[in-house]
Amino acid sequence: MEKVVLAYSGGLDTSYCVKYLIHEKNLEVHTILVNTGGFSETELEETEKRAYELGSSSHINKTIVEEFYQKAIKYLIYGNVLKNNTYPLSVSAERIFQAIEVINYAKQIGAKYIAHGSTGAGNDQIRFDVIFQTLAPEIKIITPIRDLKLSRQEEVAYLQSHGVQYSWEKAQYSINKGIWGTSVGGKETLTSQNPLPDEAFPSQLQKDKEETITLNFEKGELVGLDGIKDTPVNNILKLEELASAFAIGRDIHVGDTIIGIKGRVGFEAAAPIVIIKAHHLLEKHVLTKWQQYWKEQLANWYGMLLHEGNYLDPVMRNIEVFLEDSQKSVTGGVKVKLKPYHFMLEGVESDFDMMKSDFGQYGEMNNSWTADDAKGFIKIYGNANKIYHNVNPDQS
Amino acid sequence: MEKVVLAYSGGLDTSYCVKYLIHEKNLEVHTILVNTGGFSETELEETEKRAYELGSSSHINKTIVEEFYQKAIKYLIYGNVLKNNTYPLSVSAERIFQAIEVINYAKQIGAKYIAHGSTGAGNDQIRFDVIFQTLAPEIKIITPIRDLKLSRQEEVAYLQSHGVQYSWEKAQYSINKGIWGTSVGGKETLTSQNPLPDEAFPSQLQKDKEETITLNFEKGELVGLDGIKDTPVNNILKLEELASAFAIGRDIHVGDTIIGIKGRVGFEAAAPIVIIKAHHLLEKHVLTKWQQYWKEQLANWYGMLLHEGNYLDPVMRNIEVFLEDSQKSVTGGVKVKLKPYHFMLEGVESDFDMMKSDFGQYGEMNNSWTADDAKGFIKIYGNANKIYHNVNPDQS
Amino acid sequence: MEKVVLAYSGGLDTSYCVKYLIHEKNLEVHTILVNTGGFSETELEETEKRAYELGSSSHINKTIVEEFYQKAIKYLIYGNVLKNNTYPLSVSAERIFQAIEVINYAKQIGAKYIAHGSTGAGNDQIRFDVIFQTLAPEIKIITPIRDLKLSRQEEVAYLQSHGVQYSWEKAQYSINKGIWGTSVGGKETLTSQNPLPDEAFPSQLQKDKEETITLNFEKGELVGLDGIKDTPVNNILKLEELASAFAIGRDIHVGDTIIGIKGRVGFEAAAPIVIIKAHHLLEKHVLTKWQQYWKEQLANWYGMLLHEGNYLDPVMRNIEVFLEDSQKSVTGGVKVKLKPYHFMLEGVESDFDMMKSDFGQYGEMNNSWTADDAKGFIKIYGNANKIYHNVNPDQS
Amino acid sequence: MEKVVLAYSGGLDTSYCVKYLIHEKNLEVHTILVNTGGFSETELEETEKRAYELGSSSHINKTIVEEFYQKAIKYLIYGNVLKNNTYPLSVSAERIFQAIEVINYAKQIGAKYIAHGSTGAGNDQIRFDVIFQTLAPEIKIITPIRDLKLSRQEEVAYLQSHGVQYSWEKAQYSINKGIWGTSVGGKETLTSQNPLPDEAFPSQLQKDKEETITLNFEKGELVGLDGIKDTPVNNILKLEELASAFAIGRDIHVGDTIIGIKGRVGFEAAAPIVIIKAHHLLEKHVLTKWQQYWKEQLANWYGMLLHEGNYLDPVMRNIEVFLEDSQKSVTGGVKVKLKPYHFMLEGVESDFDMMKSDFGQYGEMNNSWTADDAKGFIKIYGNANKIYHNVNPDQS
Repeated sequence: MEKVVLAYSGGLDTSYCVKYLIHEKNLEVHTILVNTGGFSETELEETEKRAYELGSSSHINKTIVEEFYQKAIKYLIYGNVLKNNTYPLSVSAERIFQAIEVINYAKQIGAKYIAHGSTGAGNDQIRFDVIFQTLAPEIKIITPIRDLKLSRQEEVAYLQSHGVQYSWEKAQYSINKGIWGTSVGGKETLTSQNPLPDEAFPSQLQKDKEETITLNFEKGELVGLDGIKDTPVNNILKLEELASAFAIGRDIHVGDTIIGIKGRVGFEAAAPIVIIKAHHLLEKHVLTKWQQYWKEQLANWYGMLLHEGNYLDPVMRNIEVFLEDSQKSVTGGVKVKLKPYHFMLEGVESDFDMMKSDFGQYGEMNNSWTADDAKGFIKIYGNANKIYHNVNPDQS
Repeated sequence: MEKVVLAYSGGLDTSYCVKYLIHEKNLEVHTILVNTGGFSETELEETEKRAYELGSSSHINKTIVEEFYQKAIKYLIYGNVLKNNTYPLSVSAERIFQAIEVINYAKQIGAKYIAHGSTGAGNDQIRFDVIFQTLAPEIKIITPIRDLKLSRQEEVAYLQSHGVQYSWEKAQYSINKGIWGTSVGGKETLTSQNPLPDEAFPSQLQKDKEETITLNFEKGELVGLDGIKDTPVNNILKLEELASAFAIGRDIHVGDTIIGIKGRVGFEAAAPIVIIKAHHLLEKHVLTKWQQYWKEQLANWYGMLLHEGNYLDPVMRNIEVFLEDSQKSVTGGVKVKLKPYHFMLEGVESDFDMMKSDFGQYGEMNNSWTADDAKGFIKIYGNANKIYHNVNPDQS
Repeated sequence: MEKVVLAYSGGLDTSYCVKYLIHEKNLEVHTILVNTGGFSETELEETEKRAYELGSSSHINKTIVEEFYQKAIKYLIYGNVLKNNTYPLSVSAERIFQAIEVINYAKQIGAKYIAHGSTGAGNDQIRFDVIFQTLAPEIKIITPIRDLKLSRQEEVAYLQSHGVQYSWEKAQYSINKGIWGTSVGGKETLTSQNPLPDEAFPSQLQKDKEETITLNFEKGELVGLDGIKDTPVNNILKLEELASAFAIGRDIHVGDTIIGIKGRVGFEAAAPIVIIKAHHLLEKHVLTKWQQYWKEQLANWYGMLLHEGNYLDPVMRNIEVFLEDSQKSVTGGVKVKLKPYHFMLEGVESDFDMMKSDFGQYGEMNNSWTADDAKGFIKIYGNANKIYHNVNPDQS
Repeated sequence: MEKVVLAYSGGLDTSYCVKYLIHEKNLEVHTILVNTGGFSETELEETEKRAYELGSSSHINKTIVEEFYQKAIKYLIYGNVLKNNTYPLSVSAERIFQAIEVINYAKQIGAKYIAHGSTGAGNDQIRFDVIFQTLAPEIKIITPIRDLKLSRQEEVAYLQSHGVQYSWEKAQYSINKGIWGTSVGGKETLTSQNPLPDEAFPSQLQKDKEETITLNFEKGELVGLDGIKDTPVNNILKLEELASAFAIGRDIHVGDTIIGIKGRVGFEAAAPIVIIKAHHLLEKHVLTKWQQYWKEQLANWYGMLLHEGNYLDPVMRNIEVFLEDSQKSVTGGVKVKLKPYHFMLEGVESDFDMMKSDFGQYGEMNNSWTADDAKGFIKIYGNANKIYHNVNPDQS
């Protein structure tokens, strides 16, 4: 029997796929769950158990939080990437690395097929398929959900006809969780007028007193909190626990999907938002004007290509080296005050802070230049404008 | 006697300038205060009275809020301009239009000199001088404060020696107010570590219950609040009154000054921040991906050149027509919830909302395309990546 | 019988379509040839005659050179658009306007179908279909050549079986001609190593003495040659006749197609290349640095979207107003020396030439600033670099 | 006696400086000539001899062609940098590295002063001073020519009064030569209308038969000519000798100077132009669309900052790593046909050529996708435009 690797999440769609691939396609199903930080140990065990119950020939849970950090989150922080100035790419980034794990696993066990549960209406199918087709053009893709367009009822009925009796109640909000944030979709996000209600978010407000915390960065990476050193991944997890108790980092992303239509999705991403804003403030103190300018251009593009499934375009590697090189002096602490639903950046402390140079303070006279120097500067600085208006007197 | 026009604010520095220009330079002083929305009627009368007391041959108060809106604020809204992703250019924009009024007035009354009270350590001297030198190269600029570098004590002593006995106590925070926001400088902003204290801000928190308000835009302009139509300027003023009572829109701007050093300044700008964020959200629903992309590029540049005194570069006019043209469908309402210290964008309602098209909703299957269409799309969409990795197999 | 409008060129593929649509699809065929400047009167008459012979119910020849100039060429000149720094978008631009004419005609005569002869392997199918689907989603598209993938032999045999006996010898090079240039494809362009031979190009070298000509621009448009005024379209035609006799403007374009693969195509475009290079030189004299910078960004994007069939993205309109506004002072003459196979730009003469301002000549000392002004300028101009290295001493 | 290091070229201005620094400033003069490839051995010996005759306490000739290549030319090739689409930055780039050598030498010998012969009217003073002030803020800069604004006659008279009797006839054209090209200024370049005459250029046409040569690139560097391997620097020198005999690479650069005025200068740069154009063509075959796009953005900026003396901005280092990383597959041969005054790119041969992928040729049907795939692609590719026009029907 030929093998198929199925990206399995434990939900209705991919459970349907297990049965479908076995009974309709006559394949040996090997399920894999790639965990980017959204699954607890218990959930992973549950999913594995269910996979075997459904008939998987084998199942693995693969946790790739560290790889995800090293290959994407790190650069998203370096680049202060918030899509449309809002969204930390919580889901879109992790899909890419899930796809890479799945396809590598398929190659490793010699599968001829790969299957996933995406529909034909969203971005995820594109992220998965482009990665699969690029890294293993010889492996065929099967997408039962996209192809058959079944209703929930039909899927449940089919599963029942194969003896599967789980209860599949539909959650009111569709939640997608990973280390870099949680997306939340529901009836409000299908139209434009209304926000998600508080109860749609997995985290709930638990604190009402403000707290101040210092984020310690070293060459752009979050190496500590309040001076206590730990790995960046652990620091993200700790900060998420702390900040999500303030219900910080909730918003709604409205954007252009890869398929050309507008999409709207809620999210909560306490740690990502706090980290990016703090990192960005530190950069304002330690990078030059044009470093900041070009970082922003490249990083926004990086976020866009990542979001749109083009992670394997080599320009992504070129941008990564740029971003990494730009972080040489992004070292220091950023003080952040957490309050219910929002936070304030209080200030930074860095050896590379250009506010601390020997060249004087803004607005205070100093010994670096005289009034005459300033006048000379202005005279020549204004030349381009003056010359233009000199030859275009009617435009003044 | 030859005439000098002095940009007069009523403070110590420009009061010193009046006496200095009369007694040391033997000039006939004509003072002008250009009000961009920061002065009350009472303050304007006070300033006029003081100008005459000091010896001004004439004084005028010129309020240019409407011109300032038409020539700059409008475009800053179209462009969602927040310098360094934070600062609505509260002060930098108004300086330009103050300078233009001053130089036009000088030309009108036939002054041979123009004077202002800027020091040699900041951006304002550049904004003023570049505008003056470009629009009237024949008028000479006098800057006593920049040239003489006197202490407050020396200025006060000089004024007293000429019979001026005002008390000039130094405010703890230097405040600069206009319709597009108020800057706040003080001892905390001279270094990097600490935020401004609450009491440094002119507005104080007055409300603790949240309120929801709808901003009505028409072709990018704020034409109403909760459906009540008024001029954009009046709507800004009304919204400022409402939102500043929530202490919204406070932050600290850290940026690169024209003179190449880093500067840090606090500000409060409740209405500008709420308007820009609401306008931006509406645009996400009604503009195409590339409209948003290019608007952002051009608008950030526009903000930079404006901030840096290059308002008269003709590229600014070119960008303005682009921005204006981009606003054709930026019409609709944006619901905003105001809360103490922060606000949430709730949603939009617009006839031009692309979420409401006949082409289906994101994530929901529809009649616009089939699973096979999606597969065909992906196959070709992925070609570039696939071809690259096909000829560069070692990079996969 | 239901009507179909067929974009007809007179060649084998679209002749096959006429018969196919009549006999296999049972449709009333109305042919249209949209001429963007590549067809002579004789050729238009021939094509019309042939259309009727094949069974067209009606045929029209629509010449849109002036519209093509007003809606696209003008902006391509304003923007100095050369794709990949080489190709004036000779074919890609005209496809868009051909498609618009065809769809408007179909709407006008109430056709339910529209047909074209593109294959499934190129860009043209995309340009046509996107325009058709956007402007008339209700009209169905039929593409026999793309769908059936017939060989030339099969098409000829089918036509013969319907009594059509034309001889359809295959040209050695496939030529596509319009006012903005002629593309040339052949066996050399299918691979990367070799250039097209001289004889592949429609124009042949006829002159060996150099000639000098002055191009007269007014607000960016070519309003005259050697001072003799005429319409821009006529000037393009005259210049093409003159310059193509020198075999100027030949090159090979290598680029990324919409479908993600690389494409290589030869072209000759004597007038477009000379006009764009001359226009660009004039702009270097009359526009500011940042006007040139942003024009280039936007114009290259404009060319890309046009090339890729996205002419109807509203950002294109936004860019057009920017480009038009940037041309206010692009007025003057540019002297060009034509030589066999190449040309030299000799110089410009313009009232708005900033070399002629009162502010001194580059490299010559003048009265606009002193040595001390220059030193003051440099001191402050260098601040940013100095401060960075002051706090990062190890990076110097 | 305190030491001064003088950047000495052997010409009238810097010869004047030697005497001036000795007699008027009472300094011990140490001259240095930094050779970026423009001086022959004989010229270097002559200059050294003259330096000692004038009274230099020591003189060194420092040839930095290899360093210049490694630190700048390499990146200018990677980036295809032609300022204003024309000028390979022949002079502006070398000034920076000359300045770095000079300041390092001054630090090494413990000089308190550094002197150069630039005037106050050009870019070079800025390039020199910014480098000097950044790398050695403690060393004072002396610029006699800028400060004194003497005529040639006055300089000659002063030298004669100190016993220097050289004949200093003024060359008709001012020539500045280095490995990356030669600038040529003269009376024609002071105004806009006319080209430089043929005789103004150092190289003269020596060949009238065309020749074909293959440039061999490896990771973006020119490692061979016609398959004969050599160092990039040697290959540049060989190609210059070959191509300059065809009088290739002459043009006039019109640009915006750092001081805000327009400048016009002729140049000849046979090897740089041929290399850049060949390298660019190779990149069109081996890089993806977005690699090319972003390389161009960054490289043009790199060229601008280099030209404007901002080589020490750390963004330059960030851009360099991007450019270097982008060259991984820029390996292959480019065939170029040299003809009198111009050249043609004939084609490329590369293992990484994406024209040679397994995914089919442009315009030829293949097995990678079907007509239905193409239709599906177009349907979804067109969504954004279709949706916009669906909700904005009046804009169609």
